[in-house]
Amino acid sequence: MKRLMNCIVGIRGRSTELNQAIWEKLDAQARPDRSLGRLEEFAFRLAGIAGTLTPVINGKTIFTFAGDHGVAEEGVSLFPQEVTHEMVANFIRGGASVNVIAAFYGIDIVVVDIGVKGVFPEMSGLVRRKVGHGTKNFLKAPAMAEEEAVQAVQTGIDLVAEKVKQGVNLFGTGDMGIANTTPSTAILSVVTGVDPAEVAGPGTGIDSATLKHKVAVIRQGIKKHQPDPGDPVDLLCKVGGFEIAGIAGEILGAAMHQCPVVVDGFISTAGAMIALLFEPKVKDYIFLAHRSREPGHDAMMQWIGQDPILDLSMRLGEGTGAAIAMNLLVLSTHVLNDIASFEAAAVHSPEQV
Amino acid sequence: MKRLMNCIVGIRGRSTELNQAIWEKLDAQARPDRSLGRLEEFAFRLAGIAGTLTPVINGKTIFTFAGDHGVAEEGVSLFPQEVTHEMVANFIRGGASVNVIAAFYGIDIVVVDIGVKGVFPEMSGLVRRKVGHGTKNFLKAPAMAEEEAVQAVQTGIDLVAEKVKQGVNLFGTGDMGIANTTPSTAILSVVTGVDPAEVAGPGTGIDSATLKHKVAVIRQGIKKHQPDPGDPVDLLCKVGGFEIAGIAGEILGAAMHQCPVVVDGFISTAGAMIALLFEPKVKDYIFLAHRSREPGHDAMMQWIGQDPILDLSMRLGEGTGAAIAMNLLVLSTHVLNDIASFEAAAVHSPEQV
Repeated sequence: MKRLMNCIVGIRGRSTELNQAIWEKLDAQARPDRSLGRLEEFAFRLAGIAGTLTPVINGKTIFTFAGDHGVAEEGVSLFPQEVTHEMVANFIRGGASVNVIAAFYGIDIVVVDIGVKGVFPEMSGLVRRKVGHGTKNFLKAPAMAEEEAVQAVQTGIDLVAEKVKQGVNLFGTGDMGIANTTPSTAILSVVTGVDPAEVAGPGTGIDSATLKHKVAVIRQGIKKHQPDPGDPVDLLCKVGGFEIAGIAGEILGAAMHQCPVVVDGFISTAGAMIALLFEPKVKDYIFLAHRSREPGHDAMMQWIGQDPILDLSMRLGEGTGAAIAMNLLVLSTHVLNDIASFEAAAVHSPEQV
Repeated sequence: MKRLMNCIVGIRGRSTELNQAIWEKLDAQARPDRSLGRLEEFAFRLAGIAGTLTPVINGKTIFTFAGDHGVAEEGVSLFPQEVTHEMVANFIRGGASVNVIAAFYGIDIVVVDIGVKGVFPEMSGLVRRKVGHGTKNFLKAPAMAEEEAVQAVQTGIDLVAEKVKQGVNLFGTGDMGIANTTPSTAILSVVTGVDPAEVAGPGTGIDSATLKHKVAVIRQGIKKHQPDPGDPVDLLCKVGGFEIAGIAGEILGAAMHQCPVVVDGFISTAGAMIALLFEPKVKDYIFLAHRSREPGHDAMMQWIGQDPILDLSMRLGEGTGAAIAMNLLVLSTHVLNDIASFEAAAVHSPEQV
């Protein structure tokens, strides 16, 4: 807990010193003011984070954290629990959606076993940081112990620190864990005070009867454990997940190292809520990748107070949305760095009319 | 006119033969059904257009058509008319927004002088297909003669044919032309019957007094010439633009060669409306890149009956939005081709539970 607290204390909001100079540079480019819309917003934020008018992305990494959930035994998902394990093997072989999308963009994927049930055979490419063999079913017991929650968050922080040393300065989050929309919805519900019935969704595609059951399970878990809505460790212990904790740690670590971090979809945004409960200043480093089709995602984004970059009706996780949005951030740095000014291009600006 | 009619007669709707097989391939991938949302929709359409379950984009070209507008002398733009000419030089030097964005994605830009006022010095990289030295001010005379409209459309068709021979099979549109939101809004207004006051916008950033004046100019032009809302050549002659005609031709040419074509923003979508009036089947090949911040764009997209791929609050033209969206289409082909199936990845599907 002490190391975790040291990280959190080290997080500062991004410098605003260059704000005016960044807008001046963008406004001097040979095109109508603000005509590149959100690309300019991203460029502005990235330059501020980097503390330079010429930000460069040197390395891009997505951590795909995998963990299992005891609550899966309540039948809240369409898929059997062993799919978490099977999908980790699929990530390692490079055949999963996030592999294909990240490869297209030249983004490095790091697959982390932070809490998958069962043991993996030796596999090159798998980062083994197992905190537990899945969480406990929160209808029967708290999902994890306090030291497990802290260890899982610390794992995310540590992994980022290793990558920063290697020159990575743009991070993305990702998740794999059968049943993990259930703990994510529980976190959302506790933090915002909204009833699970209003924000729970189909996850991987359950029918309406199973959705009703899922709502009942989430309500019952919250009622049993009464998590403190302002305490991220208490939330993780009672209704959280190992991968959600890892994602929260990744976001804290990125913020500590003053690196932008792109938050994937519904599960990752639950992780972002946990990170923000630890330290609200991480918001300066967070970019929300896309609007998930999971209905509760809007309430999460509203609570965070940011608009997503993309809306492609995706609902997969793994880091798939993060990969696409990260590429748009890299593009934004080129927009800031490479577009010629009115002066350099010898183009009349409106002021010269 | 005869060559143009031959092209239009040659346009067929895309084959639906593979529809079921494409969805079966997507649904067999090791992830929840439809979890990649619109990427699957794009992959589905691209595979249907290509007539194969493994579509490959071999070459990507954006045509940036540049033309001037006589109506600029009515003071409807924030920028002086010579900016069209200056920006063409900027495109050729590679310093403009579309150069930076297209270069990032490895997309080839072809800059076409289809109707810029004045003569360019010899410049490598500029395609000279000037139909006229800007259109006429439509408050005083029809914008162009019928043979000019046909020639400008034919130019777009011919340029696509040349690139198809070189292996290009994904096209994007782009425009440059001071004052060109004015003819684009006029086309929108005539075709949909909506008053210009409801759809005219700030373009490059005019103030509300100038916007009122712009609305009056568009109303007056329409009243004077009474363009036939169902006749694309009549629309181009009376209130069109050379670059809008070239874009329409590009779209017709792409459809004739059964290639997808990504329509950039407001000006390009006016070109798409013209192309659709020539032949409604081009819709099968059209992808709308993004929602422009120009307020009339929504009415255009509604008339076409498609949703845009992106919404980044952009309003620049040049092909900037097309470039970003084209990259997402290329990604979609990788999604279809490269993600492992449940069977290949040895992952349990819901059916096996």
